[in-house]
Amino acid sequence: MKKISIALIGLGTVGRGVVKVLKKRRLQLTKQLGIDISLDVICEKTALGRKDCELVKGCTVSKDALAVARQKNVDILIELIGGIHPAKKIIIEALKNGKHVVTANKALLAEQGDEIFLAAQKARRELRFEASVAGGVPIIKALREGFVANQIDEIYGILNGTSNYILTSMEDRGYSFSSALKEAQEKGYAERNPGLDIDGVDAAHKISLLALLAFNKRMPFDTVYREGIRSITLGDILYARELGAVIKLLAVAKRQGNKIDVRVHPTLIPIEHPLSSVRGAFNAVFVKGDLVGETLFFGQGAGEKPTASAVVSDVVDLAKEIAGGLTEVPKVGLGKKASLRELKNISDIETKYYIRFQAIDQPGVLAQIAKILGAHAISISSVLQQERNKAKSVPVIMITHEATEKNIKRALKQIEKLNVIKGQSVAIRMERLS
Amino acid sequence: MKKISIALIGLGTVGRGVVKVLKKRRLQLTKQLGIDISLDVICEKTALGRKDCELVKGCTVSKDALAVARQKNVDILIELIGGIHPAKKIIIEALKNGKHVVTANKALLAEQGDEIFLAAQKARRELRFEASVAGGVPIIKALREGFVANQIDEIYGILNGTSNYILTSMEDRGYSFSSALKEAQEKGYAERNPGLDIDGVDAAHKISLLALLAFNKRMPFDTVYREGIRSITLGDILYARELGAVIKLLAVAKRQGNKIDVRVHPTLIPIEHPLSSVRGAFNAVFVKGDLVGETLFFGQGAGEKPTASAVVSDVVDLAKEIAGGLTEVPKVGLGKKASLRELKNISDIETKYYIRFQAIDQPGVLAQIAKILGAHAISISSVLQQERNKAKSVPVIMITHEATEKNIKRALKQIEKLNVIKGQSVAIRMERLS
Repeated sequence: MKKISIALIGLGTVGRGVVKVLKKRRLQLTKQLGIDISLDVICEKTALGRKDCELVKGCTVSKDALAVARQKNVDILIELIGGIHPAKKIIIEALKNGKHVVTANKALLAEQGDEIFLAAQKARRELRFEASVAGGVPIIKALREGFVANQIDEIYGILNGTSNYILTSMEDRGYSFSSALKEAQEKGYAERNPGLDIDGVDAAHKISLLALLAFNKRMPFDTVYREGIRSITLGDILYARELGAVIKLLAVAKRQGNKIDVRVHPTLIPIEHPLSSVRGAFNAVFVKGDLVGETLFFGQGAGEKPTASAVVSDVVDLAKEIAGGLTEVPKVGLGKKASLRELKNISDIETKYYIRFQAIDQPGVLAQIAKILGAHAISISSVLQQERNKAKSVPVIMITHEATEKNIKRALKQIEKLNVIKGQSVAIRMERLS
Repeated sequence: MKKISIALIGLGTVGRGVVKVLKKRRLQLTKQLGIDISLDVICEKTALGRKDCELVKGCTVSKDALAVARQKNVDILIELIGGIHPAKKIIIEALKNGKHVVTANKALLAEQGDEIFLAAQKARRELRFEASVAGGVPIIKALREGFVANQIDEIYGILNGTSNYILTSMEDRGYSFSSALKEAQEKGYAERNPGLDIDGVDAAHKISLLALLAFNKRMPFDTVYREGIRSITLGDILYARELGAVIKLLAVAKRQGNKIDVRVHPTLIPIEHPLSSVRGAFNAVFVKGDLVGETLFFGQGAGEKPTASAVVSDVVDLAKEIAGGLTEVPKVGLGKKASLRELKNISDIETKYYIRFQAIDQPGVLAQIAKILGAHAISISSVLQQERNKAKSVPVIMITHEATEKNIKRALKQIEKLNVIKGQSVAIRMERLS
């Protein structure tokens, strides 16, 4: 019976979940795999409470993560402290010292993956990160292994549970954005400082990693366009519903000719599309490959248990490799860095748009708007204007045919200068999901 | 650069697809993995046409599958001839001769897996079968690897594309079962002899394999209850729709206490459930695990390309293991055979039921039916009776509360003897999908 020794860094929510699962399932996994996966070292820099002391019984507890990363008898290091520092140093040190690494750290991999992937490649060790995207949904495994024979053309993901929870509760309960955010914070679905989630940064981290696996290209993270959900109003959600669509924070990764198009923004999705029915804190990923065609993966995106499930699946995969006698990972690159020329700029994308203006309700307004749109090669597919209010301004909703982002931005700027238009206009993309 | 040598047995639709993919993606896979996956031998017993001769260029072509299974330099054998004989002998011979095996043969594994799994275990070789269930959807990988840390409690699958295509076209186009079947045959979605598909045998093969992975128990295939879609009428589909449900051929594998419940039958699924929106020839699998919670996988269930994608993903996994120096598969069992005591008998299941009677339209009929149901501990949740026809009989639809299958069968038998009831009654289960 081979024994594989595990060290775990970071005893937060996910860390505790992983400890529980590794202990609870140890015997079963041993029976099933013929390998004893033994959690030997736990590293946590803050003092442990009584419950945690009970939890870590039988493990060596350390406060020095770098020393653990260098410890000779450890086979696999699990990094669960999150953030860039000191996680980066710990992971690189572990790789250099011959350990395989499992992490859930999407921010680190998306923003500073270069050094880490290089370190793994140099050390001929594996770096696994199933838990970093879509929690319990094994989408990384699907892209890396299940779809290995495919050319992946398109990925659309609902990858941020917090944003989806907020948008769903606005739609279901008629909340404003700020009320929905407040409720999500009270229920623990949103953090007190929710920017990473609702401004699209977290989803951008995740789609960058999926794009890396799908296109074998590392994204320069700063170039990934991201736009969050703060400007979505209840009105937009209701108008969208009337138009047969739902607004979701969508992460997009597409191959278009020799360009790669990776971005995150609110998007109108037709209610017929399966992604439109992903509600609450759930995640879903829609993948289109040249062989498999259209596929969809759906499940919980976060939480102690689903994330622990993903971490342990990575650990088991590595344990099987080590126990099976795998000595070195083949020396291959995990994606070149994409050059700017290979990346599609957001101003060059072409989609339909939902546009909302606040206009004075008088004859000729539509004509003035339409004229400017026409001058920018934007044609209108439908118009929605229900409220009537002679005195004040009313919202005018338009759906355009396919137009370039560049032209839309220019046209809106010009339209906003019209006397009959009040305040800022809103444009939400409508992705053509095949 | 390690070279892995592949032999492929059977140049049918899927076989040709695999050859195309292995050739088209060879360089890319080599670059990506650092392994040269080389298709060296193709075995097909019928004479090759001109196109196939072109396709197999560069490979040795053989008609003797057993000789190929014994060939020294072959690392992985792909079996794609289907059926029990001679596939079984070829696979066992290949395993005995130290080859890893990839197959899409669900019938063989479900009906006679015992010998094959044992042969793999004895030879310490791997037997992979991703392509056997749900084509392009990597559900076997998800269950075996992604969810390895989970206790899987429930699996619900739409696993037979032909049946789902027929049910969808009945619903969409108002076809009768026989017209829908005929159209499916004309379009190539159903075989001329459609029994394996529409009588639930194919879905039963597949759910047996998923149950094996989920519960680590081999199903004695004869005990897996299967009921097909031949008796579903357009009327049932329309009544179901009125009741907010869709009729699907559902494959079920559940853990209930210490019993395993595996079966295939038509089922009313609420339209809110994601499985209800799986249309046409698509497949979907809903999995509930104790850590990941509810997950759904959706994609094409069959066809040359999705199936080839799955076969090649298995081949690549094995090639990585071989190239990585994996010498022997750990000696562990792939599931014990489930004893009859461990299996839930269909007559013991408890669900809600949709029941349709053909009754003479006169006062007191409902009372007579209700009395018999009550005597069998079956309570009625709702009744649907729209058509009025004093002279002839009319359909009466009832939805029951939870009842045991045993009681339903007994009650129906008694009700059918009533003078006011004409012909056979129909009972369709309504699975409580959480």
